[in-house]
Amino acid sequence: MKNYRFTISYDGTRYHGWEYKKEVDTIQGKMEAVLHRMCEAEVKLIAAGRTDAGVHAEAMTANAHMETKRSTREIRDYMNRYLPDDIAVLEVKEASERFHARYNASGKTYCYTCYDGPSKPIFQRKYVTKLEGSVNVNRMLQAAEFLLGEHDFRSFCGNPKMKKSTVRTIHSIDIIREGDCISFYFHGNGFLQNMVRILTGTLLEVGYGRIQPEQISTILEAENRKFAGPTAPAQGLRLIRVDYD
Amino acid sequence: MKNYRFTISYDGTRYHGWEYKKEVDTIQGKMEAVLHRMCEAEVKLIAAGRTDAGVHAEAMTANAHMETKRSTREIRDYMNRYLPDDIAVLEVKEASERFHARYNASGKTYCYTCYDGPSKPIFQRKYVTKLEGSVNVNRMLQAAEFLLGEHDFRSFCGNPKMKKSTVRTIHSIDIIREGDCISFYFHGNGFLQNMVRILTGTLLEVGYGRIQPEQISTILEAENRKFAGPTAPAQGLRLIRVDYD
Repeated sequence: MKNYRFTISYDGTRYHGWEYKKEVDTIQGKMEAVLHRMCEAEVKLIAAGRTDAGVHAEAMTANAHMETKRSTREIRDYMNRYLPDDIAVLEVKEASERFHARYNASGKTYCYTCYDGPSKPIFQRKYVTKLEGSVNVNRMLQAAEFLLGEHDFRSFCGNPKMKKSTVRTIHSIDIIREGDCISFYFHGNGFLQNMVRILTGTLLEVGYGRIQPEQISTILEAENRKFAGPTAPAQGLRLIRVDYD
Repeated sequence: MKNYRFTISYDGTRYHGWEYKKEVDTIQGKMEAVLHRMCEAEVKLIAAGRTDAGVHAEAMTANAHMETKRSTREIRDYMNRYLPDDIAVLEVKEASERFHARYNASGKTYCYTCYDGPSKPIFQRKYVTKLEGSVNVNRMLQAAEFLLGEHDFRSFCGNPKMKKSTVRTIHSIDIIREGDCISFYFHGNGFLQNMVRILTGTLLEVGYGRIQPEQISTILEAENRKFAGPTAPAQGLRLIRVDYD
């Protein structure tokens, strides 16, 4: 048995998220079915994280221990042949025996993209969230400053029963306008359930002018989900990269 | 009655082309239905050209004579509200009484995009054509030189019964690689039926090494569709711009 590391890209539109669930389509389910077919044995795939239903990935990392005579390139090609056209294996590498895609991940980068133009984003319509009005990027950048560093992000956690630590570190938040699209890049050591979507939803409230940038401190201190803004829709979110030391 | 000029963007994937056809979805059909609803009268929309089934447009130009009390901005917003999410009106302007989107068009730019990487293009999968191997861009650029200027493009015309002139002028052909994608930009005074797709299919044959760049002259001189390469699939093609003097 060797340990393999996979870099995977997917359009999450028609999936019930990453994690395997009976009777519905998930990314893990599709991937494991193809690996099962290839190895003629059950294969368990471990991802760096579980993306929500409708969330996309440019480069998710996962690993699996399995037995095959195929080269890493042949594994990639086999998988791309049998996977649906909205899931792709970008790369397969042999990993050290102890490599674990979730435990060893040291950081992640997510991008959330919104459209606030006067028309409709035709070619990007499944990957961006259309806003109802225009937002002020400078105000959102001011608000983002308060989120940087190590904080208890309980106010930005979608799971009210979360028992483990809700302390995380955000290394950087970049908010970039390109034409009628605004992209929020979040780089941190890890993110809680729905955290990126709640961060984006809250920053957008600041952008609309309904929350003051300084209020972010109060929201963090409250350690209560009710104080933050709404959860932005899944379709605008993409996992960009997972870091390993 | 005023004459209005529309700039329209659409994802052609699920349409039977631009032109109105009974009982199937077309861009013209969808647009005219919304204009009919808005004006409470039949409206005839004239486009710069008729894109094939599955072909996309970033900016198609069309015009229509119609009666409405709405401002150009209100017309745009009304249309975007009632059009499906794969058709958008980018701009509506009042045009001179005699403006005709087809007769007055002095040039068009099309882009054809291919993917020749080792994986699958997930987010662009409906807008690019996946190649079976890699192609040599320099060879294709050499071949493109032979296509520039005024020629009889009968060999590159998809309609064997074409009775009107098949002489056209190509002003420029740019072939640009960005990562695993190769985009062909064609700018000319007009294009025959399927012409951009046959030009691309032929240039790709050169890129694969099956046709020599110099053979393009022979193909042009033959004035016979059989001498050119295959018609590249519709999905990789986008109308980028229509010029008016």
